[in-house]
Amino acid sequence: MQVRAAVLEEFGRPLAVQDVELADPKAGEVLVRLEACGVCHTDLYTASGADPSGYAPCVLGHEGAGVVEAVGPDVTLVAAGDHVVTLFAPECGKCVHCLSPRTNRCTAIRDQQGLGYLPDGTARFSRGDEELRHFMGTSTFADATVMPEIALAKVSPEAPLAGCAPFACGLSTGIGAALYTAQVAPGSTCVVFGCGLVGLGAVIGARLAGAERIVAIDLSEERLAEARRHGATDTRVAADDTVDWIRSETAGFGADYTFEATGNVQVMQQAVEAAREAWGLATMIGVAGKGEMLDVVPRLLITGRRVTGSSFGGVKGRSQVPGLVDRWLAGEIDVDALVTARIPLDEVNEAFEAMERQEGIRTVIEL
Amino acid sequence: MQVRAAVLEEFGRPLAVQDVELADPKAGEVLVRLEACGVCHTDLYTASGADPSGYAPCVLGHEGAGVVEAVGPDVTLVAAGDHVVTLFAPECGKCVHCLSPRTNRCTAIRDQQGLGYLPDGTARFSRGDEELRHFMGTSTFADATVMPEIALAKVSPEAPLAGCAPFACGLSTGIGAALYTAQVAPGSTCVVFGCGLVGLGAVIGARLAGAERIVAIDLSEERLAEARRHGATDTRVAADDTVDWIRSETAGFGADYTFEATGNVQVMQQAVEAAREAWGLATMIGVAGKGEMLDVVPRLLITGRRVTGSSFGGVKGRSQVPGLVDRWLAGEIDVDALVTARIPLDEVNEAFEAMERQEGIRTVIEL
Repeated sequence: MQVRAAVLEEFGRPLAVQDVELADPKAGEVLVRLEACGVCHTDLYTASGADPSGYAPCVLGHEGAGVVEAVGPDVTLVAAGDHVVTLFAPECGKCVHCLSPRTNRCTAIRDQQGLGYLPDGTARFSRGDEELRHFMGTSTFADATVMPEIALAKVSPEAPLAGCAPFACGLSTGIGAALYTAQVAPGSTCVVFGCGLVGLGAVIGARLAGAERIVAIDLSEERLAEARRHGATDTRVAADDTVDWIRSETAGFGADYTFEATGNVQVMQQAVEAAREAWGLATMIGVAGKGEMLDVVPRLLITGRRVTGSSFGGVKGRSQVPGLVDRWLAGEIDVDALVTARIPLDEVNEAFEAMERQEGIRTVIEL
Repeated sequence: MQVRAAVLEEFGRPLAVQDVELADPKAGEVLVRLEACGVCHTDLYTASGADPSGYAPCVLGHEGAGVVEAVGPDVTLVAAGDHVVTLFAPECGKCVHCLSPRTNRCTAIRDQQGLGYLPDGTARFSRGDEELRHFMGTSTFADATVMPEIALAKVSPEAPLAGCAPFACGLSTGIGAALYTAQVAPGSTCVVFGCGLVGLGAVIGARLAGAERIVAIDLSEERLAEARRHGATDTRVAADDTVDWIRSETAGFGADYTFEATGNVQVMQQAVEAAREAWGLATMIGVAGKGEMLDVVPRLLITGRRVTGSSFGGVKGRSQVPGLVDRWLAGEIDVDALVTARIPLDEVNEAFEAMERQEGIRTVIEL
């Protein structure tokens, strides 16, 4: 079939929206008619050429939501008509990581996915004789895509799909970092550095976990206002004395949990320093630039701080994304406030530009 | 009373063993007749002047064991005749940290202890008109010392005191890092970098926790032989490819738990890199040099590794040291093999020199 898709032709150039061919799903694969897709920093990171593992040409996009249109042979997990969220982090349910409650890092298809292929080592997108590789196993800047069934979370059909899209990456990443990676304890103090979609997700996750104090830090007063809307109890404009201020607000000890959602290694260092002596946990969510290092003063560790990181918020996609969507439907998560722009696919490059200007929280492409 | 003590007169100079005055214990304090004291790297670190928080003159030594000779007013935790291990990390049982199961960082007396004084802000040691400050709240390079009752662990009188001394610092630190800080799970794979007393303690702790594989890394074949004696299942001479080798031995993933017991920040970095994707925990036990930083590749965190540190092995001294000593008496810990030299107090400087040559595991001063 022919689908309209935004293709990364060359690093550092605008995406080219065009008609491409999409082949039928093979065994274990699913054809998804996409309805919405968030525009995420990871798309821009790859499009810019900054991602050392990037490749082109490929169909970009990974924060998708849609409806199953058809399934290939042997598919048992979803059926035509199911509403699904796409998962760049699949869940096979059988590998050493899926069988552990401690991680969401499914190993089933990672090698081929990293190369831009579906699990059998081929691509479903093409243009004449030329194959177009998949991006993050998803490729959701398109009317439709073909994906492995283990990479689709079946969600409530009552949830509007434009609001489901952020659960495919940024929002689940932030919420999950608090709920699943850090496992924030009720009554605790949390600090979130950076109030984009991921950081706001961490604010939401901390609130859902029952944190008593949720401190949000950002350079933008507007984003701090958003953080208050989603549950931050304290907000502060980022400054040189941020860590000292956090310590002064916590009897000199620091915060029980800190979250870094900017990808800036200096901010990561602040997140470590602001974590509490004795048991503070600093969780890195942002993706640092290539070759950048996080410098940690060893004494901060010896005196009891812990440092970790989170990918897709530690969320096991098929098992846990549906429940997060349900919490939105139950009124616990204000997704509407997070989707600050809705655009057609043709405007994807403008969405990248707006993102670079840090405008809004999340732009969703309606397909 | 007059006691013989090894005094740090000036950084970088040999200790001066001499007679000094020891005042009676005040309220909440205890006079301990010391029988044995281990010579620890921390003593040498301070004596050398490398420790930025060091001070002189003071009575050095902190890995002591002895018998309570007298108690000051209001002492309820120990009585004359009790066998005790000295605790540079006290346990008041009442502060915010003592009340938490997550940490051993008692806050009760830390400020004065850091300055070299007992909790009331004065010293018990003197020489004529000159006060001699306490070291780490202990000062156990002496026939006797005065310490707060909350800094003494009452241990079995059946345990020879020369063997109790290493439980006052190095041995408990290593064992505790595995048992209490990392909480090694049965059946797991552990890697210990550095096989001095602390590293061997971590090997022992991993064994006591039921680890299936315990890999010890050191530059010295002799120390690796010691590691095997205490429970290491695999040993390897440290080399440039240590991390690659560990990954190759663990299906490419890395070890469930790694422990750093050298204080070298490059080795700390290896400990992080050798920890397993998805859930590996790297625990820093060694003390880095002033101003040195641990460089962490953020991607290692995002993909699920955790980094922490351990002070006194996370051991709550009064509550948990007695049980560790009991495990020695029960035959689970081979302390005799760890005490590789016994010397009189007058030879303390020679013990420092032997330590710099990395001779033996632990020298104990018999007092």
